[in-house]
Amino acid sequence: MTAKNAFYAQSGGVTAVINASACGVIETARQHPDKIANVYAGRNGIIGALTEDLIDTSAESAEDIAALKHTPSGGFGSCRFKLKSLEDNKREYERLIEIFKAHNIGYFFYNGGGDSADTCYKVSQLSEKMGFPVQAIHVPKTVDNDLPITDNCPGFGSVAKYIAVSTLEASFDVRSMAATSTKIFVIEVMGRHAGWIAAAGGLVEDNGIPVVILFPEVEFDQEKFLAKVDTKVKEHGYCSIVVSEGCHWPDGKFLAEQGTRDAFGHAQLGGAAPVVANMIKYALGYKFHWAVADYLQRAARHLASASDVEQAYALGKAAVEKALEGKNSIMPTVVRESSSPYKWSIGEAPLSEVANVEKMMPMEFITDDGFGITAACKEYLYPLIKGEAYPPYTENGMPDYVTMKGVAVPRKLDSFEL
Amino acid sequence: MTAKNAFYAQSGGVTAVINASACGVIETARQHPDKIANVYAGRNGIIGALTEDLIDTSAESAEDIAALKHTPSGGFGSCRFKLKSLEDNKREYERLIEIFKAHNIGYFFYNGGGDSADTCYKVSQLSEKMGFPVQAIHVPKTVDNDLPITDNCPGFGSVAKYIAVSTLEASFDVRSMAATSTKIFVIEVMGRHAGWIAAAGGLVEDNGIPVVILFPEVEFDQEKFLAKVDTKVKEHGYCSIVVSEGCHWPDGKFLAEQGTRDAFGHAQLGGAAPVVANMIKYALGYKFHWAVADYLQRAARHLASASDVEQAYALGKAAVEKALEGKNSIMPTVVRESSSPYKWSIGEAPLSEVANVEKMMPMEFITDDGFGITAACKEYLYPLIKGEAYPPYTENGMPDYVTMKGVAVPRKLDSFEL
Repeated sequence: MTAKNAFYAQSGGVTAVINASACGVIETARQHPDKIANVYAGRNGIIGALTEDLIDTSAESAEDIAALKHTPSGGFGSCRFKLKSLEDNKREYERLIEIFKAHNIGYFFYNGGGDSADTCYKVSQLSEKMGFPVQAIHVPKTVDNDLPITDNCPGFGSVAKYIAVSTLEASFDVRSMAATSTKIFVIEVMGRHAGWIAAAGGLVEDNGIPVVILFPEVEFDQEKFLAKVDTKVKEHGYCSIVVSEGCHWPDGKFLAEQGTRDAFGHAQLGGAAPVVANMIKYALGYKFHWAVADYLQRAARHLASASDVEQAYALGKAAVEKALEGKNSIMPTVVRESSSPYKWSIGEAPLSEVANVEKMMPMEFITDDGFGITAACKEYLYPLIKGEAYPPYTENGMPDYVTMKGVAVPRKLDSFEL
Repeated sequence: MTAKNAFYAQSGGVTAVINASACGVIETARQHPDKIANVYAGRNGIIGALTEDLIDTSAESAEDIAALKHTPSGGFGSCRFKLKSLEDNKREYERLIEIFKAHNIGYFFYNGGGDSADTCYKVSQLSEKMGFPVQAIHVPKTVDNDLPITDNCPGFGSVAKYIAVSTLEASFDVRSMAATSTKIFVIEVMGRHAGWIAAAGGLVEDNGIPVVILFPEVEFDQEKFLAKVDTKVKEHGYCSIVVSEGCHWPDGKFLAEQGTRDAFGHAQLGGAAPVVANMIKYALGYKFHWAVADYLQRAARHLASASDVEQAYALGKAAVEKALEGKNSIMPTVVRESSSPYKWSIGEAPLSEVANVEKMMPMEFITDDGFGITAACKEYLYPLIKGEAYPPYTENGMPDYVTMKGVAVPRKLDSFEL
């Protein structure tokens, strides 16, 4: 068999460890030069394939590829772009086949979440539906932890660790200040539909911190919420609150949508955290502080979970190995063997069962009152935040993150309008 | 000389390393049992002295006191409470003397920022003005870095490291997403009057990141700002913005004060970050993300600067040593010997020159256009974020922070109304 080239792309929101998966893909491919000649990375995801903007990863040194393992964000650029179905936009698929042919690409590794799994699934069908032989393997990645079948998704463990640690630290802070000043600390976390990240904030309960969680899975009940917070403050002197960006009223409206306008009459986009904080202030009179972690949480490679980094790498590696075994249309998964001691192995799932399926928090992970996490949830979460995997730092005190050279593969085709 | 007891209290906003100073004070005092019998900590700062709510630190194990060095927040509780002048509220000073007499206190160690230095200064005058012998030493602490004379203030180096690293990580993130999605990332940092923390975000420029800083020292000029951001986005494809909470319009109004009201008609307190982000969106059309770090930045012991931890400890230690040398009414300081290699020593400043003096960013640290930091500023900042000083973690992946037992010293006096 003649060696073919592989295409690799990062898709959707990036994470602290998506580059660890890229590292797993590229380092493993480099061990099989007889089968994989080169890995071409799409510049800015699948758009790089459609526009023939390919990065020649062979121009990156072994040292720089290894450094991807400790570098957050998408080293080759990502994008938010979902391919339509083959029936609705045949032109894009024909273009992909043109690109694959022109650059001798036989492997397609797509590193992303739910939408990307769907794109990868469509590409995996090219062989059957359009007669072009390509093996498409999805490498899971999403801080939202909402992909089905796999025990968890690379990217999530590190966000979970960041939110658990940050909530603990800020709670210690508010505990210090509560006698005469701040009694309420609100942290807003990512998660529009699934409350996995918010759940991680709930771990601080095991450190004796009074904490109330607002999940997107639970309709917001203002009266119950305020009563809960007031009880905690009266008992402990302070209270921490973790609110999902997706927390919403019974009518589906997000807490963050306030209908306020700024001085110029523009609709004002706030966050859920200030809404919750002000609500408490007006109802209960407690002084507050609030934070919105936003990108800080998903980019925080400085506090990555060692489990997460290891799994992100292992799944990238497994994707290449499975491709070399002849597999197509699958996603390697994390299989939990046991929680304590934590043991896991690599499994696989057919993409047909992954694409467009969203895994919510199971209701048995949320306490009956809707404001906390259960023992089962903690047992699930702790292994995922286990271990520290610090990046190296330079002499001046900044992390030594790598930026790819990003040398372009010479173009062979005409340009293409997206 | 008979051994006397020492009083120690934490004051004002807490930091990632104020407990390292507490550790320095207590460990050093324990080495001199012939001169310092015991350290009594004020529960919740000076209020603990006034209300005779003293914590017996001898009840804390050597191991727990050592663990303070890696634990953020105020281990004994802090407060926001400024003593009035002796003339305006003699009653409070008489109460302090009563407490000091009742508990044989001869040393007063006060760990705080500018307001606290003023309180400590007033206590240091008790001897002269009211005939009660007490030596008062101020241990500097403030993330705002605005105390005079000392090269820098413990607490600042760790916030600076956190903001520099977080801005770098989030900038890598937005760089990955910019092709099809987010082009602007705004992070709001602490600093109501002084832009030291915002300046730290400017260090990412050395990593090739396009960054615009909004300092409280520079009046906000919307037109110039938008032009600057637009130029950066056109050149790099994205731009990061670090905004001080104290950034304000020429009329002195904070950017964060929007005059908006929520659904219930309550004045809406937002942050400066969403204001800046929305302003860019409406003027330039760029998609944005924003974060407000708030307490996360000053509590982030997980990413403390090793320089900062070392200096916080050394200043606590020096305070005790200087007291034992017979000093009163001073603050030990950090004296910079050289920036590269970084060398520093301990000096001292009279409290009369520290109290109520606020150190702003020197204008030569801000670029002429008002949106960046100069080489001189970078030379000042890098040593302060140098080195990592990670806390230990437990098996389950959470930092192993200590909580004091907080055993109360038996009361001897009547209660006191604050």
